[in-house]
Amino acid sequence: MAAEIVNPGSVGGTESAPGESGEPFDPAFALHRGGKMAVQATVPVRNKDDLSLAYTPGVAKVCTAIAEKPELVHDYTWKSQVVAVVTDGTAVLGLGDIGPEASLPVMEGKAILFKQFGGVDAVPIALATTDTDEIVDTVVRLAPSFGGVNLEDISAPRCFEIERKLQERLDIPIFHDDQHGTAVVTLAALRNAARLTGRALGDLRAVISGAGAAGVAIAKFLLAAGLGDVAVADRKGVVSRDRDDLNPVKRELAEITNRAGFSGSLETALAGADVFIGVSGGTVPEAAVASMAPGAFVFAMANPNPEVHPDVAHRYAAVVATGRSDYPNQINNVLAFPGIFAGALQVRASRITEGMKIAAANALADVVGDALAPDCVIPSPFDERVAPAVTAAVAAAARLEGVARR
Amino acid sequence: MAAEIVNPGSVGGTESAPGESGEPFDPAFALHRGGKMAVQATVPVRNKDDLSLAYTPGVAKVCTAIAEKPELVHDYTWKSQVVAVVTDGTAVLGLGDIGPEASLPVMEGKAILFKQFGGVDAVPIALATTDTDEIVDTVVRLAPSFGGVNLEDISAPRCFEIERKLQERLDIPIFHDDQHGTAVVTLAALRNAARLTGRALGDLRAVISGAGAAGVAIAKFLLAAGLGDVAVADRKGVVSRDRDDLNPVKRELAEITNRAGFSGSLETALAGADVFIGVSGGTVPEAAVASMAPGAFVFAMANPNPEVHPDVAHRYAAVVATGRSDYPNQINNVLAFPGIFAGALQVRASRITEGMKIAAANALADVVGDALAPDCVIPSPFDERVAPAVTAAVAAAARLEGVARR
Repeated sequence: MAAEIVNPGSVGGTESAPGESGEPFDPAFALHRGGKMAVQATVPVRNKDDLSLAYTPGVAKVCTAIAEKPELVHDYTWKSQVVAVVTDGTAVLGLGDIGPEASLPVMEGKAILFKQFGGVDAVPIALATTDTDEIVDTVVRLAPSFGGVNLEDISAPRCFEIERKLQERLDIPIFHDDQHGTAVVTLAALRNAARLTGRALGDLRAVISGAGAAGVAIAKFLLAAGLGDVAVADRKGVVSRDRDDLNPVKRELAEITNRAGFSGSLETALAGADVFIGVSGGTVPEAAVASMAPGAFVFAMANPNPEVHPDVAHRYAAVVATGRSDYPNQINNVLAFPGIFAGALQVRASRITEGMKIAAANALADVVGDALAPDCVIPSPFDERVAPAVTAAVAAAARLEGVARR
Repeated sequence: MAAEIVNPGSVGGTESAPGESGEPFDPAFALHRGGKMAVQATVPVRNKDDLSLAYTPGVAKVCTAIAEKPELVHDYTWKSQVVAVVTDGTAVLGLGDIGPEASLPVMEGKAILFKQFGGVDAVPIALATTDTDEIVDTVVRLAPSFGGVNLEDISAPRCFEIERKLQERLDIPIFHDDQHGTAVVTLAALRNAARLTGRALGDLRAVISGAGAAGVAIAKFLLAAGLGDVAVADRKGVVSRDRDDLNPVKRELAEITNRAGFSGSLETALAGADVFIGVSGGTVPEAAVASMAPGAFVFAMANPNPEVHPDVAHRYAAVVATGRSDYPNQINNVLAFPGIFAGALQVRASRITEGMKIAAANALADVVGDALAPDCVIPSPFDERVAPAVTAAVAAAARLEGVARR
């Protein structure tokens, strides 16, 4: 999960990094030694007979059948159950551009979350290029081996172009989780917060702090879901039509967001707003939080330091959520991406549509059910009902939207 | 394992391919359903505490440490134990150019053999391009995620250029198994056959049928190992300096092989030869086999139809080997590649040298030990001593050759 504003010093540090010899003291290093994942055979290769089926000569029949009828690749290889987790290492966690090798522990982590939560196999692919076209060409060439591509920790605005071009060129799900995973979980929490407080999404006005991958995707997704109005602020203030310093992505954002016509600082837009969504890593002054409408929702998702401390947020807001696991209402992408890919792969979807993402958010919100409360607008990442519910909803939506291939 | 001459009709066929509905009857299809491999987590992800070590926030420290000291990627990710099995699907088994998707069952098979026999993780990467430079660029971009690259089933002569360029640009082992794996196992069998019959390698003259990936590599490797003379024949006869139809690879071959100066047919060179090595898929007439020197070795390795039937070969030869599992002395690459990569990865070798391959062949030959006999010049692929012996020998050789990095 990348944040637009890097927050150095707040994450990690190397005081406990390993020295030239011996194990480091930090348990994170001990756990990471040798990596976090492995490959396993799912068929036996114990003897000559096994080998003659799984390898030559038996495998030749299977190859020939796929050559004659290409869609059989989904039946007779692991393609349909394996996702490439692709990064260029340019926007890793809050660490920024640390390069492909240093990003690998995150990609491995993502891969094992895919497996643990969604039953989806995943392979870390950290690329030695940051050139947009080279990344696109490379992923297109890799595509025969994978059922889907999870783009991860690629910096904005390159991530938008890379995702769009890959979606144009490939007929498998391409999903930049920093954008859409975050947006899906945010919408689920927002829907439940609205339900809890008896409001309709159309009556809510939201302000998003951060116009990177997550901020842009959340803004578009909330509007698609029917939110009344959304304003997005970057480091220079609200993204509005009167600004002349916007890149193409933010120019488009200025066209479709901020119907109320705010310009100037984040605080200006926050006065009277119903929802604050923080995906920036900055800090919002308490006075600005206090200026929000009564019964507001504050989703301060920066990690590890939320834009508004939960204790402060609770003084003014009806519902508070963060990105942290040690507070209630954790907005955690792991609630979404495993089930979204599992559902898409199950029906061999050619892409992941807005409808599939909306279905994922709704299913995620519904898991909360009667437990709905200010401190429970989103399920725990370890709620075992989550991935099956999201998977089923996404698969069903793919069929309805006509992108399912079985 | 690719052969230069495609032998259609001899492998596979689709009479038992699956229909539109239901499982096919062939056990190879049943075994392949859903693929042959999976990914697994090697660390727990059961609760919040697990997640905070394996993923955020714990993982950030590990990423930061690698960013500051890049070689730590080998300690704290799976990079050093995972190999990319890369193909473009142009020379798959005896099936030829069947494309990337149809090649996947072979690449998966290779991956599980890596795991089963060498304890090495491997990921199938079948590329949607056959352009030499695009393949090279793609693999270079993938390299941060992998400890080594096993090139597989890429047609000659492109495979030679791809391997050479990758070796120039990357500092991890790049190994085209169709070339070098076959060459290593062949040398091991040949060394034992020579020992069995009391001859020195330098006294032997060999004829190779097939100037594709395997034939070219075997010729060069046997000369490097000290064989007296080697002649290589392609479909047009012996590769010799007087031919004007040779591509650059075969021109180089004409310079370094065929010291005896044969020209014309394979049969011409075979008269009086001590060793026949078949990696072509063609057929050698019995009379030509009969014309070889007394006590000859016939290694007819085409699959499933050896160039010389073992029953015929036994009429004239002292030692007979094939590529088939249902005859003694099976020349099977699985005897080499798992241990070669396991040894190279163990010491983080920057490349796989001739010395490491020679060491692998010697170790493989030595496993036979006192069991040496005409029907036992090479161990069984299921001999559990093989991979540890090859691994240890390759790791030791890497240190001696100065390419080990730990």
